[in-house]
Amino acid sequence: MAKAAGVSVTTVSHALNDATSSRVKAETQQHVRDVARNLGYAPNRLASGLRNQRSQILGLVSDEITTTPFAGAMIRGAQDAAYERGYVVMVVNSGLDSELEHREITMLQQHQVDGVVYARLYHQGVELPPALSGIPTVLLDAVTGDPSVSSIVPDEVNAAETAVEALIRAGHTRIGMINNVDDIPATHGRLEGFHNALRRHGIEHDPRHLVIAEPETSGGREAALALLSQQDSPTALFCFSDRVAMGAYQAATALGLTIPDDVSIVGIDNLELIADSLWPGLTTVALPHYDMGRWAVNRVLDDIDNPDTPPEQVRLACPLIERGSVGPPRT
Amino acid sequence: MAKAAGVSVTTVSHALNDATSSRVKAETQQHVRDVARNLGYAPNRLASGLRNQRSQILGLVSDEITTTPFAGAMIRGAQDAAYERGYVVMVVNSGLDSELEHREITMLQQHQVDGVVYARLYHQGVELPPALSGIPTVLLDAVTGDPSVSSIVPDEVNAAETAVEALIRAGHTRIGMINNVDDIPATHGRLEGFHNALRRHGIEHDPRHLVIAEPETSGGREAALALLSQQDSPTALFCFSDRVAMGAYQAATALGLTIPDDVSIVGIDNLELIADSLWPGLTTVALPHYDMGRWAVNRVLDDIDNPDTPPEQVRLACPLIERGSVGPPRT
Repeated sequence: MAKAAGVSVTTVSHALNDATSSRVKAETQQHVRDVARNLGYAPNRLASGLRNQRSQILGLVSDEITTTPFAGAMIRGAQDAAYERGYVVMVVNSGLDSELEHREITMLQQHQVDGVVYARLYHQGVELPPALSGIPTVLLDAVTGDPSVSSIVPDEVNAAETAVEALIRAGHTRIGMINNVDDIPATHGRLEGFHNALRRHGIEHDPRHLVIAEPETSGGREAALALLSQQDSPTALFCFSDRVAMGAYQAATALGLTIPDDVSIVGIDNLELIADSLWPGLTTVALPHYDMGRWAVNRVLDDIDNPDTPPEQVRLACPLIERGSVGPPRT
Repeated sequence: MAKAAGVSVTTVSHALNDATSSRVKAETQQHVRDVARNLGYAPNRLASGLRNQRSQILGLVSDEITTTPFAGAMIRGAQDAAYERGYVVMVVNSGLDSELEHREITMLQQHQVDGVVYARLYHQGVELPPALSGIPTVLLDAVTGDPSVSSIVPDEVNAAETAVEALIRAGHTRIGMINNVDDIPATHGRLEGFHNALRRHGIEHDPRHLVIAEPETSGGREAALALLSQQDSPTALFCFSDRVAMGAYQAATALGLTIPDDVSIVGIDNLELIADSLWPGLTTVALPHYDMGRWAVNRVLDDIDNPDTPPEQVRLACPLIERGSVGPPRT
């Protein structure tokens, strides 16, 4: 490079120092920097990142951000936390195509990301792609069987307990549940939470009051029609999700029932686009996507700063968001 | 650097060539590369990006991605297009805080982004931040008065015409519109499209059939209650958005009207979480967020490849998505 710039090696060294050097004329310094840039020797943030082995970039690898309304909050949480610590987040989505995911991770490595948040858009078990070995990685809304990998997911059992407790507090004892037909952690955790809450209050569970459905509005509608048409029908419905709860609203309307006077309804998600738009507003339990995004980034940055930080698998508690869909049972 | 590595400048040059050099022993080459890396001379993608003045990174600067459900599709479109051309997208959000936006743009510059997509999450006029001058920039869902800046927005007039034509085709002539109270391009464009479609078919507009409302479900509900309670009430409602249309559904239910037998309803957005979840499904006009994201990235990459490409301001047509909320008027 000294040769290319036509100056001594010492001059190059002084010229490329970030601070203005008193030993090199400004003009010479600019010349050396121009030559250096052409050669790929860049005295900028990226190159200084390389010097101290830090690019200040994190990768966020997710399966899909288009079709779920939760992605925004997760990504925003991740970006806010990264920004506060001087990092930026490069977001890539594989759409669950493992070959595409591999190419994306390779691209992140070429950009020398310091760490990766590996995200799923609903709580599920995953296997970490081998390409991530050697890069500090934290799981977001996902878990592996590997205890050395830090992860954060919503506490599904707690979320369901919180929802059902709200119905019990209002005076309900005939409580129906519309669960998800899919074999995912949320299905099992929320069913466990439903039973826990009933048991804690000495309420006997009527097996006819548990129905499983596709986790869509139409599934919730059909399940709620079945539950609310029974003899001794439930006075309150705990729905797997806000979309399922929207279906339960439609069923109540079709049966001429008023919410919450004739039937109380709670969901899980706090998907504001639905929960706020329903009439009356839906009382639901919030899944803490923003907070999980923040946590995952802070955790991976802690791992980068101190690789000996013990790993942890966190289940985050979920708060009740009260709107207008829960009232006392009709006597 | 040659001094630091203890070899000749020529050897450094050969050693740092990406291809394995036959003129330098592998061991020496590795040594030189190690020294180079410590000095910040990195023979990797970033550094080679710097050499040819390309980082292969684009910045996507948006106001907010948390609260709007459209962001995912826009970002996905941008990322897909970038990926196809060997780029990655670094997404940052300012939440409309101009100081934060300035710091984020500075950070993108430090990462030497080759270009920027400057996005808003609904169609609006903006001023480009001065920090972006000198960086190829394309506007996404936003426009400026500057004809030298390329931009893409939905064709609001066309979107409304498409929605109203669907009602006219089904036989409606008494068509109400629930417009937005906000002074934004969509409000004016959609009103113009509404009048255009009526005029084209020789339908006289009854001014009582135009109501403005907050663009929320509650606003739509109240406006629709007012419209549908009139004498000679409209047989069909064109709603500013899918959320407003959801409110119109609630009003119809409250008045004991069946959709589409008693009243037909169309929206704009194709917000699937709502349009698919309503019962019956909502016929609506899709805002092409994914396609706009793709276009913006391709356009900025074209500008990078060929800075002389003439700028263009595009209004993208919006397709009708038919579900179940439009039928013939009750006779």
